[in-house]
Amino acid sequence: MFAATAATIVSGAVAERIEFKSYLIYSVLVSAVVYPISGHWMWGGLAGDGSKGWLELMGFHDFAGSTVVHSVGGWIALAGAMALGPRLGKYRPDGKANPIPGHSLVLGTLGVFLLWIGWFGFNPGSYTAGIGSIGRVAMTTNLAACAGTTAALITAWVIMGKPDLTMALNGSLAGLVAITAPCDLVTANAAIIIGLIAGVLVVLAVFFFDKVHIDDPVGAVSVHCVNGVWGTLSVGLFAAPTAAGYGNGMAGLFYGGGVKFLGIQLLGAGTTAVWAFGMGVLIFFTLKKLGILRVSERTELKGLDLVEHGQDAYASFQFFSNT
Amino acid sequence: MFAATAATIVSGAVAERIEFKSYLIYSVLVSAVVYPISGHWMWGGLAGDGSKGWLELMGFHDFAGSTVVHSVGGWIALAGAMALGPRLGKYRPDGKANPIPGHSLVLGTLGVFLLWIGWFGFNPGSYTAGIGSIGRVAMTTNLAACAGTTAALITAWVIMGKPDLTMALNGSLAGLVAITAPCDLVTANAAIIIGLIAGVLVVLAVFFFDKVHIDDPVGAVSVHCVNGVWGTLSVGLFAAPTAAGYGNGMAGLFYGGGVKFLGIQLLGAGTTAVWAFGMGVLIFFTLKKLGILRVSERTELKGLDLVEHGQDAYASFQFFSNT
Amino acid sequence: MFAATAATIVSGAVAERIEFKSYLIYSVLVSAVVYPISGHWMWGGLAGDGSKGWLELMGFHDFAGSTVVHSVGGWIALAGAMALGPRLGKYRPDGKANPIPGHSLVLGTLGVFLLWIGWFGFNPGSYTAGIGSIGRVAMTTNLAACAGTTAALITAWVIMGKPDLTMALNGSLAGLVAITAPCDLVTANAAIIIGLIAGVLVVLAVFFFDKVHIDDPVGAVSVHCVNGVWGTLSVGLFAAPTAAGYGNGMAGLFYGGGVKFLGIQLLGAGTTAVWAFGMGVLIFFTLKKLGILRVSERTELKGLDLVEHGQDAYASFQFFSNT
Repeated sequence: MFAATAATIVSGAVAERIEFKSYLIYSVLVSAVVYPISGHWMWGGLAGDGSKGWLELMGFHDFAGSTVVHSVGGWIALAGAMALGPRLGKYRPDGKANPIPGHSLVLGTLGVFLLWIGWFGFNPGSYTAGIGSIGRVAMTTNLAACAGTTAALITAWVIMGKPDLTMALNGSLAGLVAITAPCDLVTANAAIIIGLIAGVLVVLAVFFFDKVHIDDPVGAVSVHCVNGVWGTLSVGLFAAPTAAGYGNGMAGLFYGGGVKFLGIQLLGAGTTAVWAFGMGVLIFFTLKKLGILRVSERTELKGLDLVEHGQDAYASFQFFSNT
Repeated sequence: MFAATAATIVSGAVAERIEFKSYLIYSVLVSAVVYPISGHWMWGGLAGDGSKGWLELMGFHDFAGSTVVHSVGGWIALAGAMALGPRLGKYRPDGKANPIPGHSLVLGTLGVFLLWIGWFGFNPGSYTAGIGSIGRVAMTTNLAACAGTTAALITAWVIMGKPDLTMALNGSLAGLVAITAPCDLVTANAAIIIGLIAGVLVVLAVFFFDKVHIDDPVGAVSVHCVNGVWGTLSVGLFAAPTAAGYGNGMAGLFYGGGVKFLGIQLLGAGTTAVWAFGMGVLIFFTLKKLGILRVSERTELKGLDLVEHGQDAYASFQFFSNT
Repeated sequence: MFAATAATIVSGAVAERIEFKSYLIYSVLVSAVVYPISGHWMWGGLAGDGSKGWLELMGFHDFAGSTVVHSVGGWIALAGAMALGPRLGKYRPDGKANPIPGHSLVLGTLGVFLLWIGWFGFNPGSYTAGIGSIGRVAMTTNLAACAGTTAALITAWVIMGKPDLTMALNGSLAGLVAITAPCDLVTANAAIIIGLIAGVLVVLAVFFFDKVHIDDPVGAVSVHCVNGVWGTLSVGLFAAPTAAGYGNGMAGLFYGGGVKFLGIQLLGAGTTAVWAFGMGVLIFFTLKKLGILRVSERTELKGLDLVEHGQDAYASFQFFSNT
């Protein structure tokens, strides 16, 4: 399930312009090759066969996958968005970005709510035994999501002059992604701070990627890569083992543990970045070389639903269909 | 969570015509001031610090919040709808109401189903310890929702000549709101009767508020206020403590307990009404006085999504956008 | 709940052309008469009053209702679709079928995901006591759904030349329906094989029913009847009682049990087919005789939402409304 999640994250960043064939190919490669290898570095011990990964042995901590799942997907998504190039019409000759609004913010909001609820399976549900406190994990998860929503709403309001719904929703997800690594080791107050920072980061990242013309339709890189890394580092800052009575025994920087734990987290986030982004570049630029990465201009304008799948996604979506 | 629910209930009644600023202000005031004070009267003992509320000490019973959550939200919603006034074009010169249909009954139905499922967290999930029977609460909750749906469908059919989907959906919610107070103390048959009455009440209430020109787009007052009060009173009628082996030991009117329990429930529902409606009037008429309550005519016609948030909620929603 | 599910299955096959009155009548008859009688044959012992059904006594096994729930609904759905006849314009004079696409594949996909998640309540949740392994049932349920999705996607791709989303979604449901009977008695590998076959069967069945001009808008018969029967028979092929440490002690054909178990399963699926399809024919052709089965041509073209319920289901759905 975690492997499929990593592959799904990529889909948001390559939506609307990738060939279905390439979609299937990268999904298999991400799920069956990229994710399991870095996953073993950090979670190998969960297999129960006594073979722990090298990051795990150093004390690296990623409770439910800020790095293992989310930043792996996010780094590959970044490579995918770079290889594909922006959607037709996304950037104007003067370099400004045109908004290409989604079909329905109602459905987008519902999707975020379903992810939010699902995260209670993702984080608290990651206790495979009765250790620690499921209640604490549910609480820190929810608090970080609330804080991320609020911070992104305010940040976008300040920058854009309007309280932007899509930014608020990205803030919810940013908080959830960030708290995924530290959720079992931090206090309620720390969870709120982690979520607030995540909400600010995601808005700034969306503007940054738009500025450098990396077209990521749903902000997958800003949510999963940027905040996956932030959440992983936050363990090294806020880990309060005594609060949880559990963990590797190390405390974060703000709890008297010095920079050691932070350094290990940085090492894990960094090596995973090299691995996942490198593999992403390899996969997507190979597909590009093979000429099967991106659909034709005509297909992109008609819509992939119609040309690739022979169906309209919803009534009155098509604006031309006989050319 | 319960405090946020109370604030959310208000949103339905003030939708489509309130300024986002005012939305944020009343949400904070309802969640941080109004709800906690009346909540302490009835649920103070749950804090575990030994300080029980005055209604609680008298034996007032509201298991998961027909009054504490729903009628508090509903009374404030009534004040909000009164302060705002009806949407443009809602009432014709001859006093008849124009229907202003929602965008999608499919999504509306899905929303009610999600609330229905969520109520199994709301009611059975309110057992904070292993007392009583979670199974009973799940059963009475579901039966009342089914009965409410059926009764509202039939009532609307008789009055309007057609089986109306939105009324049936309001009936589901009405049954759920009504059973929220008595769900742990009543038999399965009583739950069905409580739900049937809720389904009739909600339809009559919707027509009543339309008649007196209080414009409540989603029937929030009819669902949460009217049936919150009804559910609270139903405890005094149907409480069968021996069925649950739990409660304050008092029986309802129909189970040999006389009118004492009913009187306490009436006192609780009444004092909460005065408190919540009074605070609602204070909040919303103050916002009105400050001139930040209602959007301009132009904004209301263009749609709040576009003017307040800078985004269309869904494709092809706008009917004009350059004026 | 299982009875209501059986009635709901019928609704897909008779959608868009049945009178609401008839809808209510068959729902009551299916839930209160047809389902309980065949249900007692197979699940009577669950009532706990010591009276077991005749199929149950022979060792028939249907864990959560491939036959008891799904094929009962599916057989009645077949009778309903036959009695109603195809939608206006569905079949051309030359016998070819016109596609009548749904309003929104996004909502259709969401619906299948909700059913998929709900199946974890349906199958694992059917353990009424702590016997056997809930974890095994959750795993086999999910694997069969994944396999059904994949097999239907590929089958449709080969036949139609495009990877068709609606067929993939039908494949998910086909896998879920098929695994419902054997989920507690089969290995993970067997669950995958059962799901793969379900995914192929559902696509072939959809094409078959279209060929013989039985118009079933959502493929309810192909999903619930065809794969309800297949899932029931699969118990007789793949049952591995030692894997589960539970069951009636009989093994399936592929696990050394010979054809005895398969024969019992075939008998159960066959007698239920005769009962449910016979009752379906009786109910629907009686309603037809009474002249209340199908709406008028004009109602069908205007849409049942508007004529039967007085409401539009969603904005801009109507293509004419003044005739």
